[in-house]
Amino acid sequence: MKRFTILAAALLMCVATFAQEALWGIGPLVSPEIYDNNTVLFRLRAPKAVKVQITGDFLPKQKVKTPNGEYEIPGIVDLTEGKDGVWEYTTPEPLKPELYSYSFIVDGLRMNDPANIYLIRDVATLTNVFIIGGDRADLYKVNQVPHGTVSRIWYNSPTLGMERRMTVYTPAGYETDGKRYPVFYLLHGMGGDEEAWISLGRTAQILDNLIAQGKAKPMIVVMTNGNASQEAAPGESSLGMMPPSMQLPKTMEGSFEQAFPDVVKFIDKNYRTIKNKSGRAIAGLSMGGFHALHISKQYPDMFNYIGLFSAAILPNKNVVSPIYEDLEGKLRTQFAKKPSLYWIAIGKTDFLYKANEDFRKLLDENGYKYTYYETDEGHIWKNWRIYLSEFAPLLFK
Amino acid sequence: MKRFTILAAALLMCVATFAQEALWGIGPLVSPEIYDNNTVLFRLRAPKAVKVQITGDFLPKQKVKTPNGEYEIPGIVDLTEGKDGVWEYTTPEPLKPELYSYSFIVDGLRMNDPANIYLIRDVATLTNVFIIGGDRADLYKVNQVPHGTVSRIWYNSPTLGMERRMTVYTPAGYETDGKRYPVFYLLHGMGGDEEAWISLGRTAQILDNLIAQGKAKPMIVVMTNGNASQEAAPGESSLGMMPPSMQLPKTMEGSFEQAFPDVVKFIDKNYRTIKNKSGRAIAGLSMGGFHALHISKQYPDMFNYIGLFSAAILPNKNVVSPIYEDLEGKLRTQFAKKPSLYWIAIGKTDFLYKANEDFRKLLDENGYKYTYYETDEGHIWKNWRIYLSEFAPLLFK
Repeated sequence: MKRFTILAAALLMCVATFAQEALWGIGPLVSPEIYDNNTVLFRLRAPKAVKVQITGDFLPKQKVKTPNGEYEIPGIVDLTEGKDGVWEYTTPEPLKPELYSYSFIVDGLRMNDPANIYLIRDVATLTNVFIIGGDRADLYKVNQVPHGTVSRIWYNSPTLGMERRMTVYTPAGYETDGKRYPVFYLLHGMGGDEEAWISLGRTAQILDNLIAQGKAKPMIVVMTNGNASQEAAPGESSLGMMPPSMQLPKTMEGSFEQAFPDVVKFIDKNYRTIKNKSGRAIAGLSMGGFHALHISKQYPDMFNYIGLFSAAILPNKNVVSPIYEDLEGKLRTQFAKKPSLYWIAIGKTDFLYKANEDFRKLLDENGYKYTYYETDEGHIWKNWRIYLSEFAPLLFK
Repeated sequence: MKRFTILAAALLMCVATFAQEALWGIGPLVSPEIYDNNTVLFRLRAPKAVKVQITGDFLPKQKVKTPNGEYEIPGIVDLTEGKDGVWEYTTPEPLKPELYSYSFIVDGLRMNDPANIYLIRDVATLTNVFIIGGDRADLYKVNQVPHGTVSRIWYNSPTLGMERRMTVYTPAGYETDGKRYPVFYLLHGMGGDEEAWISLGRTAQILDNLIAQGKAKPMIVVMTNGNASQEAAPGESSLGMMPPSMQLPKTMEGSFEQAFPDVVKFIDKNYRTIKNKSGRAIAGLSMGGFHALHISKQYPDMFNYIGLFSAAILPNKNVVSPIYEDLEGKLRTQFAKKPSLYWIAIGKTDFLYKANEDFRKLLDENGYKYTYYETDEGHIWKNWRIYLSEFAPLLFK
């Protein structure tokens, strides 16, 4: 096999022109290194650095004051310099099962871990990720179970007058079994796009695992782009490789909700679906929860299962759209048609907690039936993965 | 709209817990900034850095000596520190149309540009990318043309005894037009996987654009994983978020070639294909060119169009596999059946140039017809994007 070792070495030189460790004859570092007891060691080779720190959502949170109020952000700890300029930090305690994010800070400059190729984008920020398995976090892992197909597909929206991109999960077996499947429409939050749920949300892994365990029915999951001015995620439209923006036009002013039947029509035409209310669910996080609330009441015969995950339920009196008119009347119509599930979830420290509490009061006062699920912490992806893995098993039963 | 601005600000705080610029009240930088004349400005805020450099494939190459010989690697230039600790570099000349890669080096430490979310992985290295449009590079951009669907789908390989992942491009219109399509099997190089061609290779963009321009026939493109020991790309199998490896077992010892009919059977069963030789092409880069050579001669009735892109044509006398036995006899059979196209491409400075020259001599001596396409430079993705955009228009005509 010697010839192949030479080939591999030659190819390595070609493909790894940036990987200078190879040139210097220094082996690559392993980081993060997850020990059997779930403590984690992080390493960075930075011989010239004066100070190396790590920030991550596994560290105790710290409070920061800003003109907009006090916020909790992930803590920061120092790494210790060891041999050959390699800095290290080991978590003092084993980490609980979860998908975690982190970055290094080298002399004040935030950077990704060069030893870890796994990065996830949250709006405009890329952070390294790793998974500590066990418990619920096993749902976030790729396991040896039948895998669904994940497609990026473009649809025409006559209402918005554009071609738009979406992400579609079809369950294992879909291609050849000839069966019809129910459809779960899953909506992202502000700053997100059709990539958010499949990357940070681990939708494909959660659904593969829940379906394999018999806990969720096989279903199609449709992840749309809820920014009505946008054709596709950053880099995926003719705008090119633009920086992502938190403040897009046409996100919560009715356009997306009005155009949503275009999505349902496209899916019903292009996939083997159950083409009625009993075969449709809709849920969303934050802005997507707001969209799910308004879409489901605007089209009360369309969805039998509704999920509001940390929903951005806000009065919006400055926005003029027929979508937002007569909230109470539309809710009355929707609940008179008895949806099988109206599910509201939020974290205790979410800045939208009070708004959700008010909305639940409105439902209570009218005797509208819903299920409430409360978690610790706030407006974070950890909670949205939990909500997805709790909500999906309740659908289409 | 004031309420939405407040919501956006609050959400920004939540999602951007790592984006410390927001906390410090400093606006985000734009980097790279591409000017109308195609000069490019790079920026990095690093107030404590002593030296900031940039390395990228748009810079003049430099030679480095290693125990394995002398190699060319991308050049490195210094940035200049300006106001507020922001370092800058502007290319002295406009850049030619191309997809470029780069990284910063801060006090010796290689890092990605935090202002640029666009990263592409090449084996174990992530680098920032940007596109200078124009000429051929317009094929690499997402343009306002009909878009095909890109799916990650798992197939069963009875020969390898595992479930394996592949990437499939279906042309715009495939879902509903009921037509049958030809299939182009496109194979990656050593260290690559089923993500290589769709990311670095810009396959979906190149095919969308060539088809829209009427230069290529609408076709299905199947991008397999050519590492026979691997179920899927790093992070996409039950091995979890492992570091990628250049030296996997079972890459060039016959297993992948032997198991290739499993792929074709799966595609013919799951997609509306033209199920015969006239509707099948196969090509690959480097190790994938080696695979394409051996697969196409092993199954001489399977492929009518064959492409070897910088193919790793190497004697492999230490490997025992029926696949590699009787090369000349199998080529005789293959060429007696007159494939419509046998296409060989390589760069002038490729370390495999001589091996390809020897192979062409063998074909010449036997009077086997092939087309030869030579480019500048060597074993780099720039060439493989060129080869794809030259080869695809020749297929299924």
